[in-house]
Amino acid sequence: MPSNGGPKVSVFGASGYAGALAAALLQRHPHFQLSAITSRSDVGRRLDDLYPRHRVPLAMEELDLDRHGDVDAAIVAYPHHAAAPVVAGLRERGVRVIDLSADFRLRDVPTYEQWYGEHAAPQLVEHAAYGLPELGYRERIQVADVVANPGCFPTAALLGLAPLARAGLIDDVVIDAKTGVSGAGRAATEKTHYVTVDENVAAYGIAGHRHTPEIEQELAVLGAEVMVTFVPHLLPLDQGELISAYVKPTREISDADVRELYADRYAHEPFVELTDRSPGVRDVRETNIARITTQVDARSGRILVFAAIDNLWKGTSSQAVQNLNLMFGYDESEGIS
Amino acid sequence: MPSNGGPKVSVFGASGYAGALAAALLQRHPHFQLSAITSRSDVGRRLDDLYPRHRVPLAMEELDLDRHGDVDAAIVAYPHHAAAPVVAGLRERGVRVIDLSADFRLRDVPTYEQWYGEHAAPQLVEHAAYGLPELGYRERIQVADVVANPGCFPTAALLGLAPLARAGLIDDVVIDAKTGVSGAGRAATEKTHYVTVDENVAAYGIAGHRHTPEIEQELAVLGAEVMVTFVPHLLPLDQGELISAYVKPTREISDADVRELYADRYAHEPFVELTDRSPGVRDVRETNIARITTQVDARSGRILVFAAIDNLWKGTSSQAVQNLNLMFGYDESEGIS
Amino acid sequence: MPSNGGPKVSVFGASGYAGALAAALLQRHPHFQLSAITSRSDVGRRLDDLYPRHRVPLAMEELDLDRHGDVDAAIVAYPHHAAAPVVAGLRERGVRVIDLSADFRLRDVPTYEQWYGEHAAPQLVEHAAYGLPELGYRERIQVADVVANPGCFPTAALLGLAPLARAGLIDDVVIDAKTGVSGAGRAATEKTHYVTVDENVAAYGIAGHRHTPEIEQELAVLGAEVMVTFVPHLLPLDQGELISAYVKPTREISDADVRELYADRYAHEPFVELTDRSPGVRDVRETNIARITTQVDARSGRILVFAAIDNLWKGTSSQAVQNLNLMFGYDESEGIS
Amino acid sequence: MPSNGGPKVSVFGASGYAGALAAALLQRHPHFQLSAITSRSDVGRRLDDLYPRHRVPLAMEELDLDRHGDVDAAIVAYPHHAAAPVVAGLRERGVRVIDLSADFRLRDVPTYEQWYGEHAAPQLVEHAAYGLPELGYRERIQVADVVANPGCFPTAALLGLAPLARAGLIDDVVIDAKTGVSGAGRAATEKTHYVTVDENVAAYGIAGHRHTPEIEQELAVLGAEVMVTFVPHLLPLDQGELISAYVKPTREISDADVRELYADRYAHEPFVELTDRSPGVRDVRETNIARITTQVDARSGRILVFAAIDNLWKGTSSQAVQNLNLMFGYDESEGIS
Repeated sequence: MPSNGGPKVSVFGASGYAGALAAALLQRHPHFQLSAITSRSDVGRRLDDLYPRHRVPLAMEELDLDRHGDVDAAIVAYPHHAAAPVVAGLRERGVRVIDLSADFRLRDVPTYEQWYGEHAAPQLVEHAAYGLPELGYRERIQVADVVANPGCFPTAALLGLAPLARAGLIDDVVIDAKTGVSGAGRAATEKTHYVTVDENVAAYGIAGHRHTPEIEQELAVLGAEVMVTFVPHLLPLDQGELISAYVKPTREISDADVRELYADRYAHEPFVELTDRSPGVRDVRETNIARITTQVDARSGRILVFAAIDNLWKGTSSQAVQNLNLMFGYDESEGIS
Repeated sequence: MPSNGGPKVSVFGASGYAGALAAALLQRHPHFQLSAITSRSDVGRRLDDLYPRHRVPLAMEELDLDRHGDVDAAIVAYPHHAAAPVVAGLRERGVRVIDLSADFRLRDVPTYEQWYGEHAAPQLVEHAAYGLPELGYRERIQVADVVANPGCFPTAALLGLAPLARAGLIDDVVIDAKTGVSGAGRAATEKTHYVTVDENVAAYGIAGHRHTPEIEQELAVLGAEVMVTFVPHLLPLDQGELISAYVKPTREISDADVRELYADRYAHEPFVELTDRSPGVRDVRETNIARITTQVDARSGRILVFAAIDNLWKGTSSQAVQNLNLMFGYDESEGIS
Repeated sequence: MPSNGGPKVSVFGASGYAGALAAALLQRHPHFQLSAITSRSDVGRRLDDLYPRHRVPLAMEELDLDRHGDVDAAIVAYPHHAAAPVVAGLRERGVRVIDLSADFRLRDVPTYEQWYGEHAAPQLVEHAAYGLPELGYRERIQVADVVANPGCFPTAALLGLAPLARAGLIDDVVIDAKTGVSGAGRAATEKTHYVTVDENVAAYGIAGHRHTPEIEQELAVLGAEVMVTFVPHLLPLDQGELISAYVKPTREISDADVRELYADRYAHEPFVELTDRSPGVRDVRETNIARITTQVDARSGRILVFAAIDNLWKGTSSQAVQNLNLMFGYDESEGIS
Repeated sequence: MPSNGGPKVSVFGASGYAGALAAALLQRHPHFQLSAITSRSDVGRRLDDLYPRHRVPLAMEELDLDRHGDVDAAIVAYPHHAAAPVVAGLRERGVRVIDLSADFRLRDVPTYEQWYGEHAAPQLVEHAAYGLPELGYRERIQVADVVANPGCFPTAALLGLAPLARAGLIDDVVIDAKTGVSGAGRAATEKTHYVTVDENVAAYGIAGHRHTPEIEQELAVLGAEVMVTFVPHLLPLDQGELISAYVKPTREISDADVRELYADRYAHEPFVELTDRSPGVRDVRETNIARITTQVDARSGRILVFAAIDNLWKGTSSQAVQNLNLMFGYDESEGIS
């Protein structure tokens, strides 16, 4: 364990894929000190036994806010509903929090409750910053006490669509997403069984996926008040996420102009790559990078946008570290590049 | 080899995935006799050496139309451009042909030439029947001398969209397709290398895929004159194809009414399955079945259609046998169910 | 459902991979009538909902021996221990049984109890025929009331080693086995989670696997009293099993002589293929075939044997149907080739 | 590109998997400066176009020893035979070389020529250090001008067997290896086609693999003069290698004593992990670590050894950087942990 005197950070819910990766990234971070890791299901088990690859030589503890509240910051990797009370408890103890759940992403509590049910800490919602720095939230994240880390699909979709949304170009959009199995979490179910996934692909959540209102909320902030059609598909791969977005533009625009728009918008973003080749999720595996290509369909005039991320990295845990870096004044890419 | 006295059928171009499977299906067909198999690249090699699984104990020969023209029918599994002259030569010898290439699918020669270049046998185009029985082509196929076997993506897309097209419900449609690697053929390239495909997914042909005009042609026949946006994606699986179609309807329609429309339309189709669950390509692996689900997105009113097929079976070779069955008066499902 | 007047067969435990496949094979068998299917976990669910690919349109029932005992034969697809009482109950009702579990494979009850714990029906053990026809058990299977269907690893290992064992050539043998995930069954656990298996390979059961005594028992019957070292490995594929056996021979023997030995021994076996190429599990996918290659290592004199099967087919369910065919006087390959 | 004043290193043959990874590791190394990268097949192409993941923003040049010889060290990632003359040319110019090919691994030129054909620079063989630091070669590597980087299979096999070899415990050994497809290199062939590998596993090189004499040479150095039976198998995964070694010991030894032997031997090795669980290749993915488990088979007394590495990392390129670190006096783990 480092004793470098930097901020102390704990990870609550470290036995899931996201929490475990967050712990691993903090463990080898040049500034933060990984203080404690907790788990609801694997108390006492060492993280390097559960995930040998991460090589975090710490045992998971049972969460005790009084004991574990003595840190500078925490990453909460609990499911929605379970996260909110923990975040609230940490806030009472003055701990700055990055919450990986959906609990503080939607700024409109009724919308949250429509998709997720009753909110356990609605009073905190207005204090949360949306943790997607590239969308213009850097200043808010720097001073935030609670950062709502975005969902993995919204991260890819919003990075892919933000330049169009800001330019008022989105009349209508369909988002077809493809994700690896780690996006479904560590729970062993029929859905995540190897034999179910292997040599297969299918859509899921076709009657409505909970990431839809999150995407719509942020597109609206950027200037695009649209109703999004969003359908995710489960693919036989472990990590990685690709969104293919089909945008009907509000006005005719050339392929070159769209590319220039993206080049301008992302000129200074260290974690956005623009490419002429259709991006593959393999290109961004285990990176904090979103790789994006646009193409105007010459026949229909539709704008096609492809954005690839690693759902566990930029889609979740390395983005959390990026946000932590911002909150504590470090270079945004420390420990994740 | 069977000596059952049924029609003699040869497969030209048997070393590729499609031709090899066609040969295997004919080999174990209760009525047809597999007469000869040819190959441009593997003359002299036995098919059961190249594809042990198919267990076809024949050697591939060099194509000699004079010698090989003495059959009742032929399946031509050549690439586009290479197929047309062979089909023409077979027609001169009175052989009925199922052509797996794109050469006779597009009824408008200029459209063909725009996407594929010069046509080598344009005079035959008008004589070809489009080999998708479920689209209303059964009678034409039964008497046809040339059947243009549909592309794999058009097969899935058209089966998925036909009921909507006929009902005048398609105002606009985006088709996001996902396919396994066998769709890219047997050629060993950087694109089909295991390490390129594994743990990856990416779109391809984003500037325009040649299956687009074929889909548009047949939708128009069904009553939907629309410009289709079609983007295929390559997935880490060997066989299987899923299309996710996003239809903006011409009028509001309920989820139940859409389901009823499909149920009516496909009530008597032995190779179309309607399901409430989102279909997976695993559900149709190595079958001649298209499995389809519809869902009206309650928020946007968009109609979502998911259709899964096996790209090598219903998408190519078992559909060819289905067509052969029709041409020779056998039950449509002989040898493929 | 067929009403062809052939023997009625039920499958008890049809919700697992093996039972479901057995039901599917019986469903399309030209002679047997699939009578009923039962399940302990999925009563009331249709099998074609659980496994769309199998297309068995029957609902799973709760087992009631009195009601379900009115059949000519049954395939019992229960775990060991659970199987024995069901087999005993069926025998009391005069039903001929193929048991897919380990309960009746070991003829020595103390050996069974050492590896599996107490036996629930030891009195039946001596009446069971070992269901590997190619090992010389055809006559016993034909008249047996209970057939103990072999384990998947023993099937591959014994077919691979039998010619050497009979020839007195095995001094010592190491069997390194590789299996797909379906071999671990349908239970969703950390071990079968996609993310655990994908991009991975590891040995399991290294302190001793229960298939070891079964292999040793049958090798001894064939004349080779050896202590086998057997280690299975889990691979990222769904179906398929390869055993690589390293035999120290009792005497020097040439590569050609070993090949001739196998050619003689398996000359008339419809389900054994000898090949010069190292066999791949893909070559035998969804077949009842074992594909075998031998190679004498010129430097060490060791005999290498590679045998590939589909663990769910020849390793389990199609072998069960092969045995059923024998028991009821049908051609051994009916319904499975 | 760093301008940190550290040693300048070039990579010759950077378009293959091993060379590209070596370049990527040097690119982000805290001390070395990646000077130039060359390729025979992809001159002018940028490495980050060919391998986006590596993010090396350099173009590949045509090799010109006069121009490219002005470096402190070079990694030569050429195939055997092609490597030797390049290594010789670099040595003439005073460049220290790590050769990833087989050309300088075998110290006995006749043995080399028996397995690989004529040697192009036999005079250099005696000057080469074998680049497996954990085998006792650290001092030789530190002062070497040519380091023969070990083969991937020998790396895993030797790390797995060294403690037994040194203790005089190996009477006889069978090594069954499993490797991902990247081990077969970047060449697109029928063997590396996705559809060939997917859902498959087969042995290859069963008549004798070229890594066998390398393993035997080093076991002999360690004290075990044995004839090794070594058979590799190709698995459906991209990176990763597992060896399962079956050792007949020279004397009876307990499981605990074997584990203690390994614990002692590897107590101070930063890149060897001993584990009670059977190691999976996933545990060591993209690390320089070998993860090893031993188990004495209680029945046969045989010692089982399982060793997992990443074939491209510890098996090739990160091991090359480990060796470079030694040669230039840096901490062995700089840039690779």
